[in-house]
Amino acid sequence: VTRSEEPETRREQILAGAARAIARNGFDHVRLRDVAAEAGVSVGMLQHYFATREQLGREAFAYVCRARATRFAEAAVGATTSWDRIELYLRHALDWSDVSDRARTWLDLASAASRDPLLREQAALSFEIWREPLETAITDGVSNGEFAPVVPPRAAVDALLALIDGTEVRIVADTVDSGDVVNQALDTALTIARLLLQVGEPSGAPTPQTQAESSR
Amino acid sequence: VTRSEEPETRREQILAGAARAIARNGFDHVRLRDVAAEAGVSVGMLQHYFATREQLGREAFAYVCRARATRFAEAAVGATTSWDRIELYLRHALDWSDVSDRARTWLDLASAASRDPLLREQAALSFEIWREPLETAITDGVSNGEFAPVVPPRAAVDALLALIDGTEVRIVADTVDSGDVVNQALDTALTIARLLLQVGEPSGAPTPQTQAESSR
Repeated sequence: VTRSEEPETRREQILAGAARAIARNGFDHVRLRDVAAEAGVSVGMLQHYFATREQLGREAFAYVCRARATRFAEAAVGATTSWDRIELYLRHALDWSDVSDRARTWLDLASAASRDPLLREQAALSFEIWREPLETAITDGVSNGEFAPVVPPRAAVDALLALIDGTEVRIVADTVDSGDVVNQALDTALTIARLLLQVGEPSGAPTPQTQAESSR
Repeated sequence: VTRSEEPETRREQILAGAARAIARNGFDHVRLRDVAAEAGVSVGMLQHYFATREQLGREAFAYVCRARATRFAEAAVGATTSWDRIELYLRHALDWSDVSDRARTWLDLASAASRDPLLREQAALSFEIWREPLETAITDGVSNGEFAPVVPPRAAVDALLALIDGTEVRIVADTVDSGDVVNQALDTALTIARLLLQVGEPSGAPTPQTQAESSR
């Protein structure tokens, strides 16, 4: 079989279409023809690139995660201090327009991952991709004296990620206004990050324990 | 139609069976005959009580939520201070044996709720049931001077619930050891609760701001 021209572009076009179709119908309900229609290609073309519905689903999931990780890396470019990086990360993760798109796909796939070991490996990779920028920022902040965490850095990372994921659960499953949920969650997540990390100046000097409280 | 003897018992027997079948197969994949087999009744008997698969699913969801709320209320009986109630709540919510059963059903139904308005109403009710004991404990703790929260009480409640739900996402979708995830999440959630609520003695006197930190 001869590959068509620009296979990566066509491949990405299909994956982007699959991501949209999954977001709308749910992973368990999406059909190849929905993806083909969304991507603007024939079912035959789609099957040329992806042997099975499951393979397409897994690759679409990985594609969405990579695209988000790239946007996250770009979001942190303007940051100077470690705290700035964490604040930008949280603002980006709990940005209303982005989180509402993301929540349904992510939780749909997290739920499907509980019954599919290959999907679960993709989900685990996604947790690592999300963890990395936070973990690096915290490690750097501890090194330069900006942070004096009251919990192990990895526990702080996991708690902030859990706050983000738990907020996504509420966005998909509660009937309250999602914009309000996200705005409040961002404020609280920033407060929790300041308290857990005991944020001070990147001076190398020890930070007074009450800094986070007294500055509020 | 004459109801069989002990209809509430039979009804609950079916709902408990449905809850187990949904936990194993996922809401989107569960069939009436799976539920009938799990509950030890015929499909005809099941249809006598529940007109449709959707009605059964929604009632099974509500049943599980009520059963959990009852266990939560019982868990708080031995608590004396408001902080004790919050600590018992978090220990119960992040108890390894309980959370692992709960996570899959809850996230499966949360995911299905994103595409089903009636399921979403049930999920919203579940958020309220979970919120109530935490909100009451925090309100009481503020009244008796035990807590001096650094965020609005409702924001503290939502953050603690998001931590629990986000930990459940990780339990179903990550490949790391779930027991370790839950143990660390409990430690961090207790620390975050102490920091957000600025826990002191239930004396009515204002609490020093550094209490939560200096006691660690």
